[in-house]
Amino acid sequence: MSEDCLFCSIVSGDIPATIVHETDEVLAFRDLNPQAPTHVLVIPKAHYANAAELAEAEPSSAASLLTAAKEVAVLEGIAKSGYRLVFNTGKDGQQTVFHVHCHVLGGRAMVWPPG
Amino acid sequence: MSEDCLFCSIVSGDIPATIVHETDEVLAFRDLNPQAPTHVLVIPKAHYANAAELAEAEPSSAASLLTAAKEVAVLEGIAKSGYRLVFNTGKDGQQTVFHVHCHVLGGRAMVWPPG
Repeated sequence: MSEDCLFCSIVSGDIPATIVHETDEVLAFRDLNPQAPTHVLVIPKAHYANAAELAEAEPSSAASLLTAAKEVAVLEGIAKSGYRLVFNTGKDGQQTVFHVHCHVLGGRAMVWPPG
Repeated sequence: MSEDCLFCSIVSGDIPATIVHETDEVLAFRDLNPQAPTHVLVIPKAHYANAAELAEAEPSSAASLLTAAKEVAVLEGIAKSGYRLVFNTGKDGQQTVFHVHCHVLGGRAMVWPPG
């Protein structure tokens, strides 16, 4: 856990969130500014700044994150219609919270380019 | 290898691509219709339709894909400026090739929403 990290505070329960899925390793909750009918963030409970740090430190958790994203899609009823997964890293990626999170977006046709 | 899969044909060398990074497990090459100054696709050499199938079947390869995406960012000089990773799954995600691929986009400020 990292102090002053918004997502660590959601994991600990100190800050509320609308949780849609949880396992020992990951937590999934709704984005506060949804950009699609389904817009859920999937995070590892452990604190890593971005996808690269997570994949290097805990490869199995990185895979668990992608598997959980699929579970979220199933729960949200968008597994068959399709969805987009997005990881932002750093300034040009528009990363705003430095605790790795996978955006799961669907429920509408996503367009190209992806931002 | 899946027959009639464009990306399997790139892995086998039957179809050319501008390769920027390669390991035993993954291949990274430039998107033919780049949406940013850096737009590279990172794929596992083994054929899986999407991120969920890869993560479930080969967790370590899913992590290797994310690690390779970071390597691409370093090679392209965008690791510090930032970048976005995108996985499209199914129709609403606008997936066009059904061999899992991670889009690595950077070299400009990405915008929100991500498509």
